[in-house]
Amino acid sequence: MADFALTPDPPYTAVIFTSRRTSADDQGYAAAADRMEELAAQQPGYLGIESARDDKGFGITVSYWADETAAASWRSVAEHREVQRLGRESWYEHYAIRVATVGRARTYPTA
Amino acid sequence: MADFALTPDPPYTAVIFTSRRTSADDQGYAAAADRMEELAAQQPGYLGIESARDDKGFGITVSYWADETAAASWRSVAEHREVQRLGRESWYEHYAIRVATVGRARTYPTA
Repeated sequence: MADFALTPDPPYTAVIFTSRRTSADDQGYAAAADRMEELAAQQPGYLGIESARDDKGFGITVSYWADETAAASWRSVAEHREVQRLGRESWYEHYAIRVATVGRARTYPTA
Repeated sequence: MADFALTPDPPYTAVIFTSRRTSADDQGYAAAADRMEELAAQQPGYLGIESARDDKGFGITVSYWADETAAASWRSVAEHREVQRLGRESWYEHYAIRVATVGRARTYPTA
């Protein structure tokens, strides 16, 4: 997926996930990433997701949530937790997660 | 550039810039992107930048700033404003900018 999230007017929560992939298990990783996008979209308070990874394995995924509670609930969904464990075990060399409150937003062309 | 920003403990400001490139002027775009990273790093309150673009031209750049004032000042730097104009004119089909306050952060492995 590579598209813009259609988020409502702020405030809302953004979870910025920055990561560098290992070279391991591309297929398993891709399947899990697709499944996580599908599962996230079913959670209460989900607003959208944006994701890009370059050809060197560096990627940024930003998921948007109605509030911090919704973001925290997604973090603790059992199937997601298992994928987080696999991520640390196999797929990611390094990652950073930042939870932020979006206060202002604009687009070009304007929406 | 494709590396992690070494940000301090929160709170700080994140500017999430999501964009889709046109197919125009790859060279001019790349030169301007490099120059903007260099120029941003010289601004007061700059904390770092993370960026990824996929092979379909969808990209996310997150720049980190000490506070909203620092982020707003960078937005209005003259050379940056001119590049913003060129971006709308030539390089970007669509973009979204979200200004957010990071409240929590963690990394793996832990720092």
